[in-house]
Amino acid sequence: MTDARSDGLAPSDIISLVSREVRMLDQRRLPTEAVTIAFTDWRGVVDAIKTLAIRGAPALGIAGAMGVALAALHAPDDPDRARAELDDACRTLRAARPTAVNLPWAVDRMRALIDAHIGDIPSLAAVLSEHARQIHDDEVERCRRIGAHGKALIHRGAKVLTHCNAGALATGGYGTALGVIRAAFETDPTLRVVVDETRPLLQGARLTAWELAQDGIPYTLIADNMAGAMMAAGRVTHVVVGADRIAANGDVVNKIGTYGVAVLAREHGIPVIVAAPTSTLDLSLPTAAEIPIEERMPDEITGIDLFGMAAAPAGASVANPAFDRTPQHLVAAIVTEQGVHRPPYDHSLREAWQAAGFS
Amino acid sequence: MTDARSDGLAPSDIISLVSREVRMLDQRRLPTEAVTIAFTDWRGVVDAIKTLAIRGAPALGIAGAMGVALAALHAPDDPDRARAELDDACRTLRAARPTAVNLPWAVDRMRALIDAHIGDIPSLAAVLSEHARQIHDDEVERCRRIGAHGKALIHRGAKVLTHCNAGALATGGYGTALGVIRAAFETDPTLRVVVDETRPLLQGARLTAWELAQDGIPYTLIADNMAGAMMAAGRVTHVVVGADRIAANGDVVNKIGTYGVAVLAREHGIPVIVAAPTSTLDLSLPTAAEIPIEERMPDEITGIDLFGMAAAPAGASVANPAFDRTPQHLVAAIVTEQGVHRPPYDHSLREAWQAAGFS
Repeated sequence: MTDARSDGLAPSDIISLVSREVRMLDQRRLPTEAVTIAFTDWRGVVDAIKTLAIRGAPALGIAGAMGVALAALHAPDDPDRARAELDDACRTLRAARPTAVNLPWAVDRMRALIDAHIGDIPSLAAVLSEHARQIHDDEVERCRRIGAHGKALIHRGAKVLTHCNAGALATGGYGTALGVIRAAFETDPTLRVVVDETRPLLQGARLTAWELAQDGIPYTLIADNMAGAMMAAGRVTHVVVGADRIAANGDVVNKIGTYGVAVLAREHGIPVIVAAPTSTLDLSLPTAAEIPIEERMPDEITGIDLFGMAAAPAGASVANPAFDRTPQHLVAAIVTEQGVHRPPYDHSLREAWQAAGFS
Repeated sequence: MTDARSDGLAPSDIISLVSREVRMLDQRRLPTEAVTIAFTDWRGVVDAIKTLAIRGAPALGIAGAMGVALAALHAPDDPDRARAELDDACRTLRAARPTAVNLPWAVDRMRALIDAHIGDIPSLAAVLSEHARQIHDDEVERCRRIGAHGKALIHRGAKVLTHCNAGALATGGYGTALGVIRAAFETDPTLRVVVDETRPLLQGARLTAWELAQDGIPYTLIADNMAGAMMAAGRVTHVVVGADRIAANGDVVNKIGTYGVAVLAREHGIPVIVAAPTSTLDLSLPTAAEIPIEERMPDEITGIDLFGMAAAPAGASVANPAFDRTPQHLVAAIVTEQGVHRPPYDHSLREAWQAAGFS
């Protein structure tokens, strides 16, 4: 990680498609060690997505797209067999995780290219590789524009609470929520951050705190259940989070715990700002009610070790939803690369989607 | 733990004063192993309190009282030296942890006996030992009465969320919040419990889940930040928690995260019931604003290990308040051994205190 930059990691450090390989920073091993893993088989990318070597909605879209390109780069010469392999890759990558819409969004864009270029596999592989890299570049550029728009919402001396990791690691570079924080800190070095550790997998403690430390942005790490006490003590002025999927009405699905933070923020008159690229919008769903919530393995709850103590009795019955739904009325603003959206969101988000050229 | 009973641990398993020793179940090692530790020096009891070998407001009062008795049992023969030693024990035990009022409450009761009996050390030791055991017996009896009163508030088929451990382990037997749950489950086996794991030290996951498993009461363990999603999904009908100190107006200080649960409960129309003995009342403070909140070591946040990953970057800046303040307007009922108290609490809590014979 010698080339980590003050405005975040270099995008190619986080994920890249080079020499017929998908390479990515293994986020499961942060902050203990920064290790890059590489795949020549698209199934390895599926596994990396499922096991959270890479995570975060925009980064999942990038990984999905690069996985499809990887399948084409190593596809059989026979067109029928190549087609079958690519169909399998698209279907499997698209469904590797259910909640972030960026994964189907990116894979569907790749699939459209497959349909157009299936007659010529070498050319198809080049087209898909180029497009996957373009998706990556576009997501990073969107983050920079989100940062530029969002920093206008953060007043001088702000104390920003963020949940989970919506940073460079989650987006392929710069970050959404952390993009806003980075952009605001650039003009106001008195800005301070409160980081929810974000159980069960501690993406706040392991990833967000690590990114902020790399950039020299002062932060205070807390357990998730301390957010209310921090707000009551006047130690939070804004909440800025990312999103895994945003419905047409502005309802937000994001990492589990976001909803609780949003309810507490309203209790204290603190604005909740959601920062996400238009690729995270799902205008096909009127509200968040139909967004699928991934249920993950119980050992994410029970498998931690605290000074040599087991976290729970053997055989404990566990619930482990990975995301929750924050209704739009709790969200003060949604920031996309197209600008700052205010409630009611329906019309504004549809315009943003069209302006992004996705319609 | 062969004598663990279906209505909770035997009180003497949790803490006892026998053969000039204070013995206690080492709660730091649960649920991995059930080990009893024993002290002949009151300073060991101080250390056990500080390091959470024993915790929970009523149990801290019992431990403090037994610590004072232990000092008398091993006091020097010389009356002046004995008095100095007992003063030191009272002062140090009283201040071992700052938030639960039961610790100064119990030590002050012991100190009054010292003043009355200092002339005869052997007799004093017997009086103090007897009184410490009486405090233990009284707390367990109060819990049973809290359970009997509180179960009337829990309707059939209830889904009760609890936070931290206000069980037998926290009270010396039966429990306050878990006393209500135990009593309700006795008449309604369809009752279900949702247990917040309760970071940082996981008393919910390690202790409450363990107690419920011992009693065969079905529960679902969640990370703290999942409480909102569980409520939104209709999986919680009541919140029942304990308290570390209750101010004259009914404001409650309890384990960090209680406040967030209470705000979420109100959002969902779910009643918050606080179960605590009168020994947890501090009528000298008009509100919770002046109740001291213990700040504990950062490594409770950063020192967990998740599948071999460090929880946070080295040198992470951390806040770790152990308790928070829940204003009385979020509390639907306070249950003491004297009965069920409803807002406004001032008069009703004062009557309960007087009825308990503490005035």
